[in-house]
Amino acid sequence: MKNTKELIPACIETPRVATDAVIFAVIDGALKVLLIRIGRGTYEGQWALPGGLVRMDESLDRAAERILSEKAGVDGIYLEQLGAFGDLDRDRRGRNVSIAYFALVNGEEYLPHTIEYYSDIAWKDVSRLPELAFDHAKIVTTGIDRLRNKLGYSNIAYGLLPKEFTLTELQTVYESILDRPLDKRNFRKKIVGIGLVKETGKIRKSGPSRPARLYSFADRKPKMVDVL
Amino acid sequence: MKNTKELIPACIETPRVATDAVIFAVIDGALKVLLIRIGRGTYEGQWALPGGLVRMDESLDRAAERILSEKAGVDGIYLEQLGAFGDLDRDRRGRNVSIAYFALVNGEEYLPHTIEYYSDIAWKDVSRLPELAFDHAKIVTTGIDRLRNKLGYSNIAYGLLPKEFTLTELQTVYESILDRPLDKRNFRKKIVGIGLVKETGKIRKSGPSRPARLYSFADRKPKMVDVL
Repeated sequence: MKNTKELIPACIETPRVATDAVIFAVIDGALKVLLIRIGRGTYEGQWALPGGLVRMDESLDRAAERILSEKAGVDGIYLEQLGAFGDLDRDRRGRNVSIAYFALVNGEEYLPHTIEYYSDIAWKDVSRLPELAFDHAKIVTTGIDRLRNKLGYSNIAYGLLPKEFTLTELQTVYESILDRPLDKRNFRKKIVGIGLVKETGKIRKSGPSRPARLYSFADRKPKMVDVL
Repeated sequence: MKNTKELIPACIETPRVATDAVIFAVIDGALKVLLIRIGRGTYEGQWALPGGLVRMDESLDRAAERILSEKAGVDGIYLEQLGAFGDLDRDRRGRNVSIAYFALVNGEEYLPHTIEYYSDIAWKDVSRLPELAFDHAKIVTTGIDRLRNKLGYSNIAYGLLPKEFTLTELQTVYESILDRPLDKRNFRKKIVGIGLVKETGKIRKSGPSRPARLYSFADRKPKMVDVL
């Protein structure tokens, strides 16, 4: 049977398109996610991921960058698509589909600042999240699963660390994300052995602890490598 | 600064939401994808993935199932989300975002039949694809990458095989997807060793070749296992 009309008839109404960002950082030895507090409206006072509607004249990636910049002041970081979330009841204000993105930032260097729409913005420990608006708890859980997964076969952790760091700091990042302790000797042997990080030749002397060698990632762009 | 309006103002127009399905099968030792030929309209005569618009009253998963059933007669298979594709120029008929899904079927058992909208439907060898409408070439490439990737760490191949098969048939499926030969002895040792498949106790005698043991997958639902 032949089609007698266009495949995309204007008469069919479809959900609207939004984007949300799951931004992770490891701060004080804990994996945290960046949340905003909605200033008013249906979800006033509730915590949520920074997000917004995709415009007609921007690609999904561009929309994710713009909205993250507008809503949370986060700029110039690589956002990876996490997936589309489109359950019927995800937004009480009207049907929409959210294309979620995620990214990792170095929390020590990064101070979020709310720009519009929101009454507050803060890093929240993923193990003690407040109740989240929309289906954002589901999106955050999906993001954590993806992060833990990628940690095992990529150099994704570079995004969470400063340019130079000690192996103790690196191990803390891994343990914070995996939520389990790692054997120090095996971890160091593996990490250095596979060439994930390289020595900078510098030493950090801090407080009572003995001086520690400083390392940097061999690559600071996404790369597959068998880590765990 | 406090928001003085809803976060999802009705005045902002957003792209429309569609879904497309990448259905793979291994037929005659080649990885193939199910394509339909558009009957008329802007893309008349061009090959594309079966797809359509998401309705207001259905979730993305449900929409993907309905559309695949309506457009290609494929029912009752597990569809996994591949990702969202929303480049500005992906559809000349109007701005829309497609949530792509993918699935594997046993091509021998499965005979597609076009139901509406399309003038033709066929399995096409991924190594010899016709020019595809929209951004479907990009979606298919993304699907192949995901499939090759998952083949290495999951039992995903079960979807491509009948309930009982020989190890030669299983190896053919792997080689077709990876597009490279695998060492027969190592492959069999690994596949049986990790418990991906188990002997059925049955033997198949066919033609001149000597009788072959028949195997079945230990699990016929998605499971992580280190295969390659």
